[in-house]
Amino acid sequence: MDQEKPKSSALSEKSGVEQPEIVSKIAAGHIVALRNKNVAAADLISGILSGNITALSRAITLVESTNPEHLAKANEVINGCLPHANQSIRIGITGVPGVGKSTFIEAFGKHLTGIGKKVAVLAVDPSSTISHGSILGDKTRMEELVKDQNAFIRPSPSGETLGGVARKTRETITLCEAFGFDTIVIETVGVGQSETAVHSMVDFFLLLKISGAGDELQGIKRGIMEMADAIVINKADGDNIKKARLAKTEFNRALHLFPAKKSGWTPKVSTCSAITKDGIDEVWEMISEFLELTKSNHYFGEKRREQNQYWMLETIDERLKNHFYNDKNTIALLEQNKKAVQNNEISPFAAAQILLENYFKFNH
Amino acid sequence: MDQEKPKSSALSEKSGVEQPEIVSKIAAGHIVALRNKNVAAADLISGILSGNITALSRAITLVESTNPEHLAKANEVINGCLPHANQSIRIGITGVPGVGKSTFIEAFGKHLTGIGKKVAVLAVDPSSTISHGSILGDKTRMEELVKDQNAFIRPSPSGETLGGVARKTRETITLCEAFGFDTIVIETVGVGQSETAVHSMVDFFLLLKISGAGDELQGIKRGIMEMADAIVINKADGDNIKKARLAKTEFNRALHLFPAKKSGWTPKVSTCSAITKDGIDEVWEMISEFLELTKSNHYFGEKRREQNQYWMLETIDERLKNHFYNDKNTIALLEQNKKAVQNNEISPFAAAQILLENYFKFNH
Repeated sequence: MDQEKPKSSALSEKSGVEQPEIVSKIAAGHIVALRNKNVAAADLISGILSGNITALSRAITLVESTNPEHLAKANEVINGCLPHANQSIRIGITGVPGVGKSTFIEAFGKHLTGIGKKVAVLAVDPSSTISHGSILGDKTRMEELVKDQNAFIRPSPSGETLGGVARKTRETITLCEAFGFDTIVIETVGVGQSETAVHSMVDFFLLLKISGAGDELQGIKRGIMEMADAIVINKADGDNIKKARLAKTEFNRALHLFPAKKSGWTPKVSTCSAITKDGIDEVWEMISEFLELTKSNHYFGEKRREQNQYWMLETIDERLKNHFYNDKNTIALLEQNKKAVQNNEISPFAAAQILLENYFKFNH
Repeated sequence: MDQEKPKSSALSEKSGVEQPEIVSKIAAGHIVALRNKNVAAADLISGILSGNITALSRAITLVESTNPEHLAKANEVINGCLPHANQSIRIGITGVPGVGKSTFIEAFGKHLTGIGKKVAVLAVDPSSTISHGSILGDKTRMEELVKDQNAFIRPSPSGETLGGVARKTRETITLCEAFGFDTIVIETVGVGQSETAVHSMVDFFLLLKISGAGDELQGIKRGIMEMADAIVINKADGDNIKKARLAKTEFNRALHLFPAKKSGWTPKVSTCSAITKDGIDEVWEMISEFLELTKSNHYFGEKRREQNQYWMLETIDERLKNHFYNDKNTIALLEQNKKAVQNNEISPFAAAQILLENYFKFNH
């Protein structure tokens, strides 16, 4: 740096009055010490169960850690929380950017805390590898909910694979439930396979839409309509009310084209406005109806058991693949074989065989 | 066995005149010897390339074998065939039982051989673990095509997993192409995930339907409509013609609800009758149009390269899982943990971790 800062300038300001520290240095020191302390799993568990939000946040950070040493401890905490979890409703919310997911979740969350619920809002956003979560990353988008004592907002964990991101969020659900949150909202963006991952960890799946130019069904991704237990058309206010009603009719007709659901539930379409709050209470009523039905026909518990099994097998598959694709004896050989397959020099099956033989030779 | 056979009966017949053997014992002996001979991979390859149908059948049997010793040889044969493969159009045909898949394929296949094509008909039917293929298992359902010199029909390979069944069929495509078949038809039944597997090995995907009671779209499985490059309404003959035309209109409208395809192709709906042969030629014209478009916009080659990469990674994943789930140190522990997860005694993630640690301990 050759350039020197000018010692004076026409734009210089007078130095102001010295202000006292806002945060006491002693108190801050305590917090830092607590943060750095290697808290035992048992302490985290008892902290979570006694409603200590710092313990919850720290346990989530542990779950999200990519440090292999944290894995055993994270599993210990989750297992300790498990007997106190599972007493909640898990709601998945998806919708492409622009439908107003944040404002909807804020209005919906405030409605829920208003009727005595404790709400945790999590997110699955596999695109957020570096930013530590673009969805919900900017908490200021949910100003009211952030300040709410009975709400907890956590951005998406980061990770290289959707599988990893989803697994971490699934584990965080258990921690939040043990803490006492009775309503878990999982947000995801309508891109890629993240809906399928979220669908496999929630009880109720809600697709958020806005009314458009009449061709409402254009561009809805395969499978998303079928996964939806409800389609909620947001921004039904002002000039949009009429369009939203038309969209409701069209979605209702489209939903009839899908086969009946195993849950016995007939998916519903409703309209709402996160601004005027019209229709927000109806969304919760609809979910309550769903709960009543699926608990009485035992679908609710069955699905959760199936989901648990799914996550065990998913975790195994993910780790087996990770082990293979991160194997130092595999990486270069894989690139080589990928090219050979692309150029039709070797069959995909023979290439796989070469890679596997090499892998098992070094891992046996 | 206490009961003795009666020595004479009122129902006895006179013994007939001794007939000469229909098949020469010497010739039969040759065939059996050839069958039992452990033919070298090089011989199978040169047999296939010179148009020897016995060599093709034997190579397919090798590919379908579950004997691990056959794996290396099968890969050798496929690699030898690879430079001579890939010059074909691969057509996937799906449709629920009752839409007339066999009669359609027979009529379609006869049309193709009539215009000088060489047609191989394969099947993916993951339900056929014991019967060695329920689809196409009964070749008499395609009487005409079976007798056709320019057609080859092979039932679905058996296997415990869809992945295995699909992989074997994908390998068989390469053998058939090297033999000289220029049109490969892959049949699958509209059940489970088999369409997705077939979709990932074909260039063109055709959904066969019949016209019903007006609610044509009821019960179409998620994703199948979106995968389809064409919907062909079969049995459009006699009293059905009008209904079939109505169904065509309805499907056309429904197809417009899906986003545009990466191929640049707009899916088409047509009607046909495998009995009167009306519209069968149009199906082939449609596929020719598709070929022209996707070869000129390079989608055709790109998709095949992507599919090759997909099959390499799929094969790796399948084998990694097989190795884990068949590991003698894993099986009992897996059952134990499945139960614990079901009963909420352990988290799915901790259970996965226990199983993986155990697996890698024994496999390191």
